[in-house]
Amino acid sequence: MDDRQDITAILEACAPDFERIEAALQEDFHSQVPFVTEVSGYILFAGGKRLRPLITVLAARLCGRDDGGVFSLSVVPEYLHAASLLHDDVLDGGQLRRGKPPAYKVWGNKAAVLVGDFLYARAIDIASSFGLAEISRVIAETVALMAEGEILQLLQAKNTGYDEATYDAVIFRKTAVLISAAARIGALFAGAAPELVAAADAYGQALGRAYQMVDDLLDYTADTAELGKRTGTDLAEGKVTLPVILAMARAGREEQRRLRGLFASGGGGEDDFRWVRGLIEQTGAAEEARRRAEAQVSEALAALAAFPPSRPRGILEGLARYVLERKK
Amino acid sequence: MDDRQDITAILEACAPDFERIEAALQEDFHSQVPFVTEVSGYILFAGGKRLRPLITVLAARLCGRDDGGVFSLSVVPEYLHAASLLHDDVLDGGQLRRGKPPAYKVWGNKAAVLVGDFLYARAIDIASSFGLAEISRVIAETVALMAEGEILQLLQAKNTGYDEATYDAVIFRKTAVLISAAARIGALFAGAAPELVAAADAYGQALGRAYQMVDDLLDYTADTAELGKRTGTDLAEGKVTLPVILAMARAGREEQRRLRGLFASGGGGEDDFRWVRGLIEQTGAAEEARRRAEAQVSEALAALAAFPPSRPRGILEGLARYVLERKK
Repeated sequence: MDDRQDITAILEACAPDFERIEAALQEDFHSQVPFVTEVSGYILFAGGKRLRPLITVLAARLCGRDDGGVFSLSVVPEYLHAASLLHDDVLDGGQLRRGKPPAYKVWGNKAAVLVGDFLYARAIDIASSFGLAEISRVIAETVALMAEGEILQLLQAKNTGYDEATYDAVIFRKTAVLISAAARIGALFAGAAPELVAAADAYGQALGRAYQMVDDLLDYTADTAELGKRTGTDLAEGKVTLPVILAMARAGREEQRRLRGLFASGGGGEDDFRWVRGLIEQTGAAEEARRRAEAQVSEALAALAAFPPSRPRGILEGLARYVLERKK
Repeated sequence: MDDRQDITAILEACAPDFERIEAALQEDFHSQVPFVTEVSGYILFAGGKRLRPLITVLAARLCGRDDGGVFSLSVVPEYLHAASLLHDDVLDGGQLRRGKPPAYKVWGNKAAVLVGDFLYARAIDIASSFGLAEISRVIAETVALMAEGEILQLLQAKNTGYDEATYDAVIFRKTAVLISAAARIGALFAGAAPELVAAADAYGQALGRAYQMVDDLLDYTADTAELGKRTGTDLAEGKVTLPVILAMARAGREEQRRLRGLFASGGGGEDDFRWVRGLIEQTGAAEEARRRAEAQVSEALAALAAFPPSRPRGILEGLARYVLERKK
């Protein structure tokens, strides 16, 4: 089976949903301060894939509720995602975001932080408007965990003694928690039974972990042009991720020392990056990182087995498989 | 009547409430990441006056509900306040906060922004836990408005053409909205009728406006030692506030030109500050700014007239009067 074709077909089948998601996003992001609308629009409409809203919509359908109200709800995880990107880019000094200069480069740090705050708040406001306290709580907890994840990562920067358990605590908070929230609020919106809400949540968590694992691998193995942002940024920022943790465990003493030095000093040049990339490939760390991502995808698929086969289940399965195929 | 004594007596009468507020604050700010707990604690327990939580508690009582549950709710506006201080200090480069170096100076910008995000989220999470959708909405709207307020202020920096309407839009969002939210959630918690919720809200708004007007005046007229932070910071940051707007309107052409130049270049030295301070006093701008604050206090008192006389009403009246007496 050609998975690339498969995902294209899947996403095409979802085209009407994507259109309604775009319409809902356009409706809700306005502020009384035009500048806020402008900055929000810049990050929200910079070509995001809208996978998080799609997951909310599909999770609701998976749990048997298929009505238009879910589109308004589906913007919530996309707003949270945009808000976190605004803050992350300021904090990390990122240079490219979806192929464009990040908002803080255009409007300054203050604007990026404050519009991020605004989008977090709008997301929570929209979530509250559904009158389901559990949806509000999921979203508030998600924002708290996301902030913790960034902090954990910050505390661990330049630390090549970083272990897999810490890596997991970071990617759970940085990425998985938001994707699982997207699935969970869809299920809650549908009034699903607790065990099905938990299954939707487990799907999102595993999918999110797989997604971040692949992302961290691509930062070493992808082409900058295809990725839409520079490769090697994790090394430059001293951010220790799974491929490096696995390479450290497999490298000789000399190589470990060089790795440690590079992360401690935050990078080195193009040659150093090529060396790290080579080490990750030669030690088998890249392959092993991929296997970890595959295991997460299997978990995601297993979680979906709680639901009877259906069209939304098929699409969610396709999304999980696609994570392993993505090049950006 | 000696108002200073008056407020001391009022606050002493509230001592048992303050104790329960502190206990609730201690209970709820913990994170699974010890570092987050540490930074949160630094800002939360830096000697804040806890007036926002007290207002929530008193508003609930004013509306006839006096039970312990309100203390958990009362921490919400204090968390939002702490979160906004963390972000503001990073964005403004503030040098002193409650007499101590601000968190970003101790732990860096990233930590301050992210712990701010965490506290916003915890506040909303706690608010959602009451299962009253309206409380969640008030809090989410408040955070969005607070972010808008900072952005408005940012957009207007160095602009001495700033008018009073814009100043009002800023102080409503920066300060009044949070104090009114503190009052409103207390009333909502008590299950008050809509017109009483609105009266509590109006009290908080007027009190908040008065508070910020006095704050902005003190930045020119107080002693640094008494204030616990430096005076003259608004001038240094090019932040145009009410005393300056009023002085501009009353100053001669030459003085206007110098004022404009000082704000455009962001400050000048100690001599310039003394000159601005003198101008604000000599033109009568200081007196007029004070009168505006007094008018807001009258509005706050008028809003309380919707409630029959009671002990909590008396305390809320005392707080409103105290705003005019405060020296820091």
